[in-house]
This record gives sequence, structure tokens and C-alpha cells, in this order.
Amino acid sequence: MMASRLPRVVALGGGHGLAASLTALRRITDRLTAVVTVADDGGSSGRLRREFGCLPPGDLRMALAALCSDDHEGRTWADVLQARFRGDGPLAGHAIGNLLIAGLWQHFDDEVEGLDMVGSLLRTRGRVLPMSSVPLEIEADVLGLDPLEPDEVCTLSGQATVATSRATVQAVRLVPERPPARPEAVSAIREADSIVLGPGSWFTSVIPHLLVPDLAAAILGTRAQRVLVLNIAPAEETDGFTPSRHIELLAEHAPGLRLDVVIADERFAASDPHLEKFVTSLGGRVVTADVAARDGSPTHDPNRLAAVLSEVIAR
Amino acid sequence: MMASRLPRVVALGGGHGLAASLTALRRITDRLTAVVTVADDGGSSGRLRREFGCLPPGDLRMALAALCSDDHEGRTWADVLQARFRGDGPLAGHAIGNLLIAGLWQHFDDEVEGLDMVGSLLRTRGRVLPMSSVPLEIEADVLGLDPLEPDEVCTLSGQATVATSRATVQAVRLVPERPPARPEAVSAIREADSIVLGPGSWFTSVIPHLLVPDLAAAILGTRAQRVLVLNIAPAEETDGFTPSRHIELLAEHAPGLRLDVVIADERFAASDPHLEKFVTSLGGRVVTADVAARDGSPTHDPNRLAAVLSEVIAR
Repeated sequence: MMASRLPRVVALGGGHGLAASLTALRRITDRLTAVVTVADDGGSSGRLRREFGCLPPGDLRMALAALCSDDHEGRTWADVLQARFRGDGPLAGHAIGNLLIAGLWQHFDDEVEGLDMVGSLLRTRGRVLPMSSVPLEIEADVLGLDPLEPDEVCTLSGQATVATSRATVQAVRLVPERPPARPEAVSAIREADSIVLGPGSWFTSVIPHLLVPDLAAAILGTRAQRVLVLNIAPAEETDGFTPSRHIELLAEHAPGLRLDVVIADERFAASDPHLEKFVTSLGGRVVTADVAARDGSPTHDPNRLAAVLSEVIAR
Repeated sequence: MMASRLPRVVALGGGHGLAASLTALRRITDRLTAVVTVADDGGSSGRLRREFGCLPPGDLRMALAALCSDDHEGRTWADVLQARFRGDGPLAGHAIGNLLIAGLWQHFDDEVEGLDMVGSLLRTRGRVLPMSSVPLEIEADVLGLDPLEPDEVCTLSGQATVATSRATVQAVRLVPERPPARPEAVSAIREADSIVLGPGSWFTSVIPHLLVPDLAAAILGTRAQRVLVLNIAPAEETDGFTPSRHIELLAEHAPGLRLDVVIADERFAASDPHLEKFVTSLGGRVVTADVAARDGSPTHDPNRLAAVLSEVIAR
């Protein structure tokens, strides 16, 4: 049997964070699997979910577009699928790709078959899988929602609400609890050389994978190297959280989780004198680098992230 | 220069009639161009037209699907694009392919670029062009709309209304009058070995091409063989019309039109003792054959129509 030299990598996440890690990872390998959250309830995805009871397609579409073939045709299809209908009519705001995916899902009983069709249209470098075939809701326990009752724990519901909350999130849950994982995602994690968590919305795109029991078991049990990519800076939902607190939150939601490498932007890492010691105590090491976008936005520069990831992954 | 032996054929029409001629013609040649009416104002196409002011995509989608690559992937994509969203929500009834085409048209300034993208997705055998880049309305002069005033000429508007009217249609017009033709369609007709008009809704899918001045001039002036495929039987809009009356209507809308071959189902031809003489007077010949679908519906059997067309075209 001929084995490719390229590493098998699984990237877990959702939204723009996952698109960023995929944009970097596609430069390193084509044996790439994206495992995508299916808890979005806002925008075009939320409307399709309510109309058809289907998985929210948006994060899956974005991951597929991030892996499109790097030629004119592949990029044109990706642009078209990412574009949204304009105007203020009944279709306005729907991403074209969301409609195509929803249409494929009406045709195929199996969501992954439909996603593979879009993958072949885009001739993607790698495969995109939903983390579960069950559409999920995210529920969060938060502190400080009511300024008059700062110590009261309240519950927020819905990915869009949680991701943009200014209250302090303590913990998140999935509804339904303990959803089934897509078996292809479990196998991909088990067989990977490296798995990459983050970057992304911490409570709504990074932590949810750890709340799907079979995915969490695969992540904890895999012989793959576990790589965590921290965000460039805290977002609204994690405002004021240190890098260590970000990592601690993962461990709180998945007791026993070990990380081999934590990739942190040098500015964010410098804000946390305990980071190195904390990660070492979890059995891992910190790799700090200047990986921020040049435009000053709190996002990763794909080339810089790819450079760091390729050193970490191709050990 | 290597020349293919296969004939260059242009099929003009719309809707199910055009899909039938394309399904037959694809068995004969891959140098095939479909020139499609853009006057539909009903259903999913009508809704998209009203929401975006775009061409009605439905007949174009149907022609593309009829030419899809004859393998599992091509047929699966064609099935998906032809399928409609179910339920009773805001998307219900929209053909998936109509939404994709409308999305491509939002991305490309040129409708034909968008259609060529769908063609490459389906790996079509041939190319599909709109007859004009201007969305059109069909207006008809009809007799007998009001049973109390049987001799009064009234005007009906809209393809959907005209195609299903039980009043006697006298003549049809396009609004706007004298729309520009797609230049690719004009070139294809000029360079064709054969052009095929019909079958289809006579007033709303067959005659409209003759009302686009540059298309009519190309049809009248081409050195290609002109083939007319009559319907299996009159439809609502042509109820009671003989085969000769069908042909006469074309000549009334395009004075000077000559036809080389008229293909008529043997039962419909037998109903009209003047057909042979009438076609001969126009310089053509009648080919009669049993070309009706086996299920008794007033549609063509694609294999039988292909057999007749291949004899006519590959002389």
C-alpha cells in the first residue's frame, strides 16, 4: 500500500475561526477533514433551519468554500456559494450556497452525501463533515446579565445570542444533550496524525465539539497530536479572559483533556504570565508567534498561521 | 483544422417541448445549442423575476437538465436542480436550479456566463442560451374570452395566462417589442447545419423566437435546414387547430419563413388532408411517423423522435 507523506489532520470548529484554520491547513495537507458545529440559529442558516428542520448549513458552506480548489473555477464557485441574495425580498440575505446545500439535503437522506456533492463541485482540498446529524441549540449559564443582580446566574439560549453576549459565560450546554456524533467525524479523529481545535467563538464554535460524547471520547482517546489555536484576542463572549482561562474552560467542559501544543499570538501570550506553566501542567507546550492579521483585525494571518502549524504538525 | 463529423444543430423553444427536442437531439450530436424563451412569468421563475428583475430561469434550467452528462453525477445534479423546495414556507415551490442560476446572475454581469457555469457543473452535451437578455412579456389578441361577445378581440397578458387560455388566440406580441437577441444565439443559427423549431406551447414557446427581429432574420437567412416538429396534438391554447393552421401561424408571425421539413405524428397528420400540399407550397416536405409517447400523453417519445430527427438531420 502506498501511503501519502502528507499528515492526516482534523480541524474542529465553526464559522470564521474554522475557515481561518482551514485556509492555513490546506497549505500543509490535502488529507484534511473539517468537523463543523451545527448549532447556528441566526441569519440565513436560522431561517432554513426553521423552514425545513435541517442542519444549519452556513458554517458547513463556509468550511467548504475555504477548501475550494485554488483555480479560477473553484474560486468562482466558492464566491458564488458564499454570496448572499441582495435586496429586501423573501430571498434577501440567504447565502446561495446555503440554498444549494438545503436543496441537496432534500434530495439525499444523508447530509454528508449532499456535502460531498458540494465538495466535488468545488473540488475541495479535504472533506467537510457536520459534528452531528442533529440540529443543535446552545444554552449558556451567564453571570451579570442583569446589572442589578450581578451574582445571579441566568440562562441564554441560541448560538447567535450567546456568541455576542456581554454577560460573563460560565458554561455552555447542548440541547439536545449528548447528541450523536457523525461516525465519519469520530473515525477521522481516531485516525488523524494531528487534530486542531480553534480558533473561533469559544463557547459556540470551539467548546461544542467537546459536548458531543463520542467526539469528546475520540478527542481524548486519539493518538493524534492535539493542537489548540488560541484566538488573537478575546471576543465579546470571552471579554477579559486570559489565555489560561480560555484553556481552563476547555478542561472544565471536557475533564481529562490533554493538549500537546497551544499556539498563541505573541501579544495575547504576553498578557498572561502563567500561560507557559499552565500549559506545561497539562502536558503540553506553548508556541508563541506573531500570527495576527496585518490589517489590525483580531484574526489570524493565514500565511503566518500556516507557517507555525506546518512546523508543529510536520514534526 | 479538424472538423467534427457531427452536425451543428440549434433547437429553439421553451419549457417541456424544448426539453423533449433536446432529449432527442442529444442522441444525435454534441454540437447542440438551445435557444430558450425568456417570457415565463409564473411559478418560481415569476417570483424570481419579480424579486430580482432577472430573466426567468426556469426554461433555461429545464434545457440545461435535459442536456446533463449521462452519468450518475450529471444525472444527480440535474435531478437536484430540477427539484423544488417542499413545504409551505418562503422557499416552497422554488426550483433549486432556479435559485442557483439567479445567484450566478447576481455574481456575473452576463447571464450567459452564469448559464455556462451550470453547463460545466452538469457537463452538458451542448450549450443553453436565452433568446434575449431582456425579460419579456407575452401579450395575445384573443377571440371569445367573453361568451356574450364572441367576436370581440381582447388582449391577454403573461405567458402563464396565454398558454392556458381557452379563448382562441389570433396573434401574439412581445413586450417590449423588438427586443435584442443574444448575439451568440444569432451566430449559432447562422452557423448551424440544422435548426429545429418546436414542439412546445405554440404561442408562448415556439412563435416568440420569430418575434425577436435578429433571431427571425437569422432563422429566415440561415443556410441551415429548417425543421419544424409539430406537437403530438393541439394544446389548450391551440385547441381545434389543424397541423396546417399551426404552420400558418408561424408564417403569419414571420412572413417569408420557409420550412424544409415538418415532422408530424401520424395521427395528427392524418387529421389534416391539406397538410402535405400546404407544406409543399412552402417549399418543404412532411415526414410523418409514430412519435408519440407510449403512455398516451400528448408528448413525444424521445427515442422515436430521435430516430426521425437523425434521419432528417444526418442526410
